[in-house]
Amino acid sequence: MILNLHGEVPSTPAHAHASATKDASAITILNAEPAFLPTLKTLHSKFPKLRIILEHCSTAAALAMVRSCGPTVAGTITAHHLSLIIDDWAGDPFCFCKPVAKTPEDRDALLKAVVNSEGKFFLGTDSAPHDRGKKRGEDKVAAGVFTQPYAIGYVLDALEKGIERGVIDEKDVTQDRLEGFVGAWGRRFYGVKENGTEKIKLKKKGEVVVDILAKEGLGVQVVPFRRGEETWSVTWH
Amino acid sequence: MILNLHGEVPSTPAHAHASATKDASAITILNAEPAFLPTLKTLHSKFPKLRIILEHCSTAAALAMVRSCGPTVAGTITAHHLSLIIDDWAGDPFCFCKPVAKTPEDRDALLKAVVNSEGKFFLGTDSAPHDRGKKRGEDKVAAGVFTQPYAIGYVLDALEKGIERGVIDEKDVTQDRLEGFVGAWGRRFYGVKENGTEKIKLKKKGEVVVDILAKEGLGVQVVPFRRGEETWSVTWH
Repeated sequence: MILNLHGEVPSTPAHAHASATKDASAITILNAEPAFLPTLKTLHSKFPKLRIILEHCSTAAALAMVRSCGPTVAGTITAHHLSLIIDDWAGDPFCFCKPVAKTPEDRDALLKAVVNSEGKFFLGTDSAPHDRGKKRGEDKVAAGVFTQPYAIGYVLDALEKGIERGVIDEKDVTQDRLEGFVGAWGRRFYGVKENGTEKIKLKKKGEVVVDILAKEGLGVQVVPFRRGEETWSVTWH
Repeated sequence: MILNLHGEVPSTPAHAHASATKDASAITILNAEPAFLPTLKTLHSKFPKLRIILEHCSTAAALAMVRSCGPTVAGTITAHHLSLIIDDWAGDPFCFCKPVAKTPEDRDALLKAVVNSEGKFFLGTDSAPHDRGKKRGEDKVAAGVFTQPYAIGYVLDALEKGIERGVIDEKDVTQDRLEGFVGAWGRRFYGVKENGTEKIKLKKKGEVVVDILAKEGLGVQVVPFRRGEETWSVTWH
């Protein structure tokens, strides 16, 4: 059994009496994940053999807490949290998800965790195929970013930008670590054997993210993350 | 002459080298206003007689900085920042504005500043009549909240909620202070004489914020803040 956690504490209700938050900051979507981390620690202490995954880690604090736990605890990181920060989703429905993307420092910590994972962190896309009408057209915006067809390309793009910014070192982005992050480490944690028959090849050849994904008869139209932008091509072998 | 400031530092570019932000947090929409405050202080020190208004204060830090300056510096507070926090605009285009609404602690500091203004803070609505298509229908959401027709009602609603939460004391919400915040203190700062002929009356009689405001022939349709919710009625005398 694996316990998969969306680790966020609910926000403090708007009507809460001030005294309820006198000794601590009120909970908002910004500190909801850090506020959950003591609960993760407690769960792990009480059930040290239980395998736990803290899904879609979005803060440096979450990474540190996962690292502080034993080998039965791991964390996933989405493709989009490797590039997004709060400025990106403010005013852009297609970059809005929960947990929300946080600060540049948090994003850079996530990038570092990809190459310094040591098996503790691996890709979990949390890709959300909301119809475009749920993203831009109603009063409320559905939370979620759709990355599935391009997820591996987005990861590479984010790593490249991380190298440009000097956050990670090019020599740390090895094939072993990439294979581990996008596949092997997750398989190992879940105890899934590699079948060895399927491989992907990544190429940079000017592939552009499509504007919309639709399936005839299904009635759903999904706008992928970073539509119209270039990314890596993935082919299956 | 009055210098009216939108006091935010631009966000750190996404491509900035990590060393550029090694000694300080990167700037995002969250800390853009606090990061500007030393500039306000410097301006005031260099031009102590210049009247300066820090418009639409959205953080406790901004209020503290305005208070620390002499009587030539004042701050405005919008109607919507008195009730909004970050959770409200995440996923809600009609609550998204710049500066973005921040934490519950910041919002509560703004509420306290209304009743403890001592003339340093007054209403500046920054009401933004974006067409609804610019708020929900395009890839990017125009920043701004439309409050104009109900602004005074929203202020009262926010004060009532602040009393309920125990943030402010009912006895501190006096007619003098309300009149000061919504009119007299701004007039005094701008040196505008009261003409004494127009007054408003506020009544709680179940007025509901309309869904949409449109003007025939103008082609713009504006969704007001808190559409469909009850607020105070304002009548002119």
